[in-house]
Amino acid sequence: MAERMIVVGGDAAGMATAAQARHRRDRDDLEIIAFERGHYTSYSACGIPYWISGLVDDAQQLVARDPATHREKYDIDVRLRHEVTEIDLDRREVVARDLDGGGEVRESFDTLMYATGAVPTKPDWARTDALGVFGVQTLDDGAALRAWLDADPEPRRAVVVGGGYIGVEMAEALVRRGLSVTLVERGEQPMSTVDPDMATLVTEAMRGLGVDIRTGVRVDALTERDGRVREVVTDDGPIPADVVVLGLGVRPNTALAEAAGMPIGPTGGIRVDRRMRVAELPDVWAAGDCVETLHRVSGMPVHVPLGTHANKQGRVAGINIGGGYATFAGVIGTAVAKVCDLEVGRTGLRERDALAAGFEFVSVIAESTNRAGYYPGARPMTVKLIAERPSGRLLGAQIVGWTEAAKRIDTLAVALWNRMTVDDMTALDLGYAPPYAPVWDPVLVAARKAVDALDPR
Amino acid sequence: MAERMIVVGGDAAGMATAAQARHRRDRDDLEIIAFERGHYTSYSACGIPYWISGLVDDAQQLVARDPATHREKYDIDVRLRHEVTEIDLDRREVVARDLDGGGEVRESFDTLMYATGAVPTKPDWARTDALGVFGVQTLDDGAALRAWLDADPEPRRAVVVGGGYIGVEMAEALVRRGLSVTLVERGEQPMSTVDPDMATLVTEAMRGLGVDIRTGVRVDALTERDGRVREVVTDDGPIPADVVVLGLGVRPNTALAEAAGMPIGPTGGIRVDRRMRVAELPDVWAAGDCVETLHRVSGMPVHVPLGTHANKQGRVAGINIGGGYATFAGVIGTAVAKVCDLEVGRTGLRERDALAAGFEFVSVIAESTNRAGYYPGARPMTVKLIAERPSGRLLGAQIVGWTEAAKRIDTLAVALWNRMTVDDMTALDLGYAPPYAPVWDPVLVAARKAVDALDPR
Repeated sequence: MAERMIVVGGDAAGMATAAQARHRRDRDDLEIIAFERGHYTSYSACGIPYWISGLVDDAQQLVARDPATHREKYDIDVRLRHEVTEIDLDRREVVARDLDGGGEVRESFDTLMYATGAVPTKPDWARTDALGVFGVQTLDDGAALRAWLDADPEPRRAVVVGGGYIGVEMAEALVRRGLSVTLVERGEQPMSTVDPDMATLVTEAMRGLGVDIRTGVRVDALTERDGRVREVVTDDGPIPADVVVLGLGVRPNTALAEAAGMPIGPTGGIRVDRRMRVAELPDVWAAGDCVETLHRVSGMPVHVPLGTHANKQGRVAGINIGGGYATFAGVIGTAVAKVCDLEVGRTGLRERDALAAGFEFVSVIAESTNRAGYYPGARPMTVKLIAERPSGRLLGAQIVGWTEAAKRIDTLAVALWNRMTVDDMTALDLGYAPPYAPVWDPVLVAARKAVDALDPR
Repeated sequence: MAERMIVVGGDAAGMATAAQARHRRDRDDLEIIAFERGHYTSYSACGIPYWISGLVDDAQQLVARDPATHREKYDIDVRLRHEVTEIDLDRREVVARDLDGGGEVRESFDTLMYATGAVPTKPDWARTDALGVFGVQTLDDGAALRAWLDADPEPRRAVVVGGGYIGVEMAEALVRRGLSVTLVERGEQPMSTVDPDMATLVTEAMRGLGVDIRTGVRVDALTERDGRVREVVTDDGPIPADVVVLGLGVRPNTALAEAAGMPIGPTGGIRVDRRMRVAELPDVWAAGDCVETLHRVSGMPVHVPLGTHANKQGRVAGINIGGGYATFAGVIGTAVAKVCDLEVGRTGLRERDALAAGFEFVSVIAESTNRAGYYPGARPMTVKLIAERPSGRLLGAQIVGWTEAAKRIDTLAVALWNRMTVDDMTALDLGYAPPYAPVWDPVLVAARKAVDALDPR
């Protein structure tokens, strides 16, 4: 008789697990049931800002694999709008509630994949019944926001709270839809995912696009009228708002896991081993935005909610559940973003991370261009490197530029992954042709500058 | 009393050496004389096709540092239009001829930097006095070709002989100037710098731009009338031509070096050690397109004439001459090119190279896109990987795509440089955001495919 795997959460991590396991074990060997509380499976949450801005027309474009594909191609019993409400690890059972029909089902499992993702941080002031307040965590959130933006009369004034990736992307999306947008950030500047000297470039670009950026400002409350949000009340005064978008980050969605007795790490994510097994629990797996993982540079556990990790982790879990052997090697904090025509990339540790991890280091900023200076379309590119002192080992890198900049971070990410020193990096054989790089690639220019900073002559 | 360094050849390698040496030793310690037979110093020969096409307006834009800068900023005695005709390593003297004045000078040296670059391959049929036949090796060559293209009546039919980088770039440049262009290639297809399956994509794009590509065709002669070239005679019949551009590759310019007794390696380039010293000759250095270097993957000496290597080698030599310590670590064959709106990148070994070097390997081709499929501007990208069997070590990679493709090769180049296996590569933490990559980056998709090819389950 077939074993049964139950997948809790039908997005990237859960469905990648299911697909890989199915690839290695057929239905007679492994039955797979996936519960998903939303209306969609396997979608790109990262694409939501582009759907809001109108760059992407249709939510279906963001769905990598729909339920029918999972059912027909992978023989996975996908149950949408079913929210798992209880996991009993001793009895090997889950209870799921049908959010539309209202009924409850109880299913047993041999193998459990917990992939519930993350939930948005929601301070007390955001817990309101007022209409016009939105997270952008799920495709259902995105659909609600889009409907609101299309309502009559159309909202004209937007306030985005929080200046992380999703906050700046949403601010840009709303400006592009013609709204007047204020971004409220409690810290010194938005985009604290890069160091302040690099974030300044992004802030300038956002202001250039017309975003009103208020930094060092704390939100205290929302006011409403006739059931609709009306103002964001801050310690710097009220800001009128027809729509409020919350971009305050997310935390691992572990409520069910904790109740079931799964171990939670210091970041709040579920503790898993390199094969994505939940620590010390047989046949219980977890992957994606609900788990914590190893940062290969700091050596510390981190919570990095990102679709690319969720997919990789799901694949690893699925190979293992399927009888193969695979491990997830950890992350180095690589991320790229497009902000108001600026391209931003980062990998490894920021200065504050390097300090916190106890490294001594130098950091350098090198100005260069994406193409040979004489080639049409050459634009500035700024590369920052952080290198351990005195070893010269690369600890982190950041890039801000206009075009052909963001993905250059991959070159630095692979160097970092391989623990290269900046001295070794000056020798790298990188592609050179005038349309694509100056004869000294920006990465090499920065590496040379870091070598000089480590050992001034 | 100051020592004296003589630099033979005032382009990238020679002048990078001079600048670095000057950075570390001032004039009282080291006098520097640089002889350059052309009209320019430190220019981008790689930029010539864009000057020809008109994308770049002015030759001066291609000059990174002009003689005045070298003289004033670096205190280097640059002597243009001076061709070194003899090097006497025993007496430590060079003889140089003033190409304009006609006189000869004899100068002694303590340190010699030989940086004469490369000379174009010129078969017997190309040794003609007919006007309208051009190489594109130097800025002076480019100036002559531009003048010819601007002459009255303007040439209308161009034949480019040779389908390497410079050949395809020149074919495109001439099409963009409005000429009717035929590219004659002796081999099966142009762009043999990548494997045939990848080169096919380039050939199609060139044909799409209107280049008439004749492959498997041997040129036998040029015919002329009134002193001007008229036809390219081939074993497939004559091809009318108002202008002929030679793109048949280059060989190290070693005539003087050989006469002086410098050691020449199997590739025809000067043999140098890792510090860029000419093997076994004290205080004699060489760098750039005239030397051979180590290929880090095959372990064999190779001749790779490319400005980026010339600059790095010159910098290494200059640091050493200046009293520091630096080595050139070799190359892995990374190159990028823009061909008719296609972007092409390669690194490491092609299949034929891997065979010649005695590797057993698998090769895979993965189709993907530069951006998330739903993001506007997503275009196909094809990644080929060659991996050693059974170890999985990456041996080579090639990319062809429409936009944001070429420089992705750097990600693979750094992986190759660090001897990563394709299995390790599947774990790489690369930048993901919808404007820049699908959630599985094309590099990761290809690595996964290579893993499957190595170990099919």
